[in-house]
Amino acid sequence: MKKSLGPKTIIYPMPVLVIGTYDINNKPNLMTVAWGCICCSDPPCVAISILKGRQTYENIMNKKAFTVNILSEDMVKEADYYGIVSGRNEDKFSRTNITPVKSELVSAPYGKEFPLVLECKLYKITELGAHTQFVGEILDAKAEESILDKSGNPDIEKLRPFFLDTTGSNYFSIGKILAKAFSVGKEV
Amino acid sequence: MKKSLGPKTIIYPMPVLVIGTYDINNKPNLMTVAWGCICCSDPPCVAISILKGRQTYENIMNKKAFTVNILSEDMVKEADYYGIVSGRNEDKFSRTNITPVKSELVSAPYGKEFPLVLECKLYKITELGAHTQFVGEILDAKAEESILDKSGNPDIEKLRPFFLDTTGSNYFSIGKILAKAFSVGKEV
Repeated sequence: MKKSLGPKTIIYPMPVLVIGTYDINNKPNLMTVAWGCICCSDPPCVAISILKGRQTYENIMNKKAFTVNILSEDMVKEADYYGIVSGRNEDKFSRTNITPVKSELVSAPYGKEFPLVLECKLYKITELGAHTQFVGEILDAKAEESILDKSGNPDIEKLRPFFLDTTGSNYFSIGKILAKAFSVGKEV
Repeated sequence: MKKSLGPKTIIYPMPVLVIGTYDINNKPNLMTVAWGCICCSDPPCVAISILKGRQTYENIMNKKAFTVNILSEDMVKEADYYGIVSGRNEDKFSRTNITPVKSELVSAPYGKEFPLVLECKLYKITELGAHTQFVGEILDAKAEESILDKSGNPDIEKLRPFFLDTTGSNYFSIGKILAKAFSVGKEV
């Protein structure tokens, strides 16, 4: 017999996605969201949810573009900072010594020091209620050589991403390999 | 200088969400997706992306409801199985000895033996391309007592969810607490 918890917005784990945008004066901004995911293979798309009123909401509406940056665990403090302070009050790039790089593909910045970035052109806007979902078409993924394996793909053990436990309000590191995906299920 | 990887659908980590649905004859089905996330606070919503042609796609279109089940790492084999076999060919509940429980709130089943479930009423359908995004309003979250902390909230260390590394095709366990969210960023 399961216990009812009410209509809670909980899944585990949640990613920590750092969204890069420009305001109308091309001032770069960063904002961390945990409510986002890949959502389509063709076109390749990522979805992020943003509250109305946020600087990032305004920026995406204006520039029709954003970047999704994935940080390594040595930048957990910075990622948290990007989520708790508004770009209206602070220059989050300079405060954290991150160099804004203008994407050559879309009107949005990414962090030179961040290991992995998706460059996204706004593809669809879905009004859901309190949150607006922005779907971005991924035009390119770019990564630092240091996180790539021999085949040129991101190696999660080199990237060392982290995730959010939304109930406990903690960031967690990745653990150990449990099983091979799209394979272990054949043993059922 | 970052290396271009092309328009890859990669974020880290991806959750492992087991979707419960009924077909038109009320046969229960399960399907695992990694492309999903919480997407709105009010109404509380979760989004999942499904390829057209899947049994789960047809079921959600018909029943306007689904459940999102989060499994513990001792069920990684079952979760993988739900993702690689079609419900058209097998009864995935009985094959894995999971008992289908009809939600009292929506026309969808969840697994009695699964530790955590979100019961969702179809709220919005967004056609994105190859994938269709189903947004479900979360009417209730239900959990086994064994994964709850003293305050009655899910305890991630008791739940022991796992996640997908999409590039390496591996399931990973959760690691250690790195930092307090919505707090450590104040030290920047």
